[in-house]
Amino acid sequence: MDAKDCIFCKIIAGQISAAVVYEDQAVLAFLDIGPVSDGHTLVVPKPHYSTVDQCPPEVLAGLIHPIHRIAKAVVAATGCDGYNVLCNNGRAAGQLVSHVHFHVIPRVTGDGVFSHWPSSKYPEGKMEATAAAIRKNL
Amino acid sequence: MDAKDCIFCKIIAGQISAAVVYEDQAVLAFLDIGPVSDGHTLVVPKPHYSTVDQCPPEVLAGLIHPIHRIAKAVVAATGCDGYNVLCNNGRAAGQLVSHVHFHVIPRVTGDGVFSHWPSSKYPEGKMEATAAAIRKNL
Repeated sequence: MDAKDCIFCKIIAGQISAAVVYEDQAVLAFLDIGPVSDGHTLVVPKPHYSTVDQCPPEVLAGLIHPIHRIAKAVVAATGCDGYNVLCNNGRAAGQLVSHVHFHVIPRVTGDGVFSHWPSSKYPEGKMEATAAAIRKNL
Repeated sequence: MDAKDCIFCKIIAGQISAAVVYEDQAVLAFLDIGPVSDGHTLVVPKPHYSTVDQCPPEVLAGLIHPIHRIAKAVVAATGCDGYNVLCNNGRAAGQLVSHVHFHVIPRVTGDGVFSHWPSSKYPEGKMEATAAAIRKNL
């Protein structure tokens, strides 16, 4: 999907309405229209990049202050017990709109959201080998 | 939990070993010992803060370049189809170590991880009211 077909670009351009909670020169934040919980907010850089690895770090850096402020505001506004800050990258990871975005998802104790966390163990030697492979690609 | 009882502070101080993939003055990244998938990496600011809303934005900002680089490296090293960048804030949100950290979780198409995404709809008028409540708390 390129920028001209991107629903978030259309929201940013004002061609599609959204419940905006924050805007600055580089970032727009608005409520997710299909929320996991009330106050579920999307924080979106205005330029169109697909994923974190494709997005220039300086564009990503512009998201930090808004995410910090929005997290505080979401906690204050919703009275949630916690929240997830989540960026899905690629369809395999659950990304539905190919314009990089961070979810801020208010959570309540025992709400059962994302409750399946399938942690495993590395077999002997595999963890260090995996770390070495990542270091080699940094 | 304060810093003296924090397992991530102990890893950062070198008192507990970890499979480190990246380190700079402000940030340490290492493999999750109970990975959701091979290459599941934790990106951690060295100072002890509990959550995104409690952490100074300038400390959070220091995570951006490492997360960007690590995301690219994890994709290259593991050949994953996508990845999640996830920060759980508060026990209600699944945070197990009270030292703010971002997960980079490699994902493969159809792996079934985080497959339950319980999106809903706001009743009439609720979305705009919720956005207004968040804006008021910004």
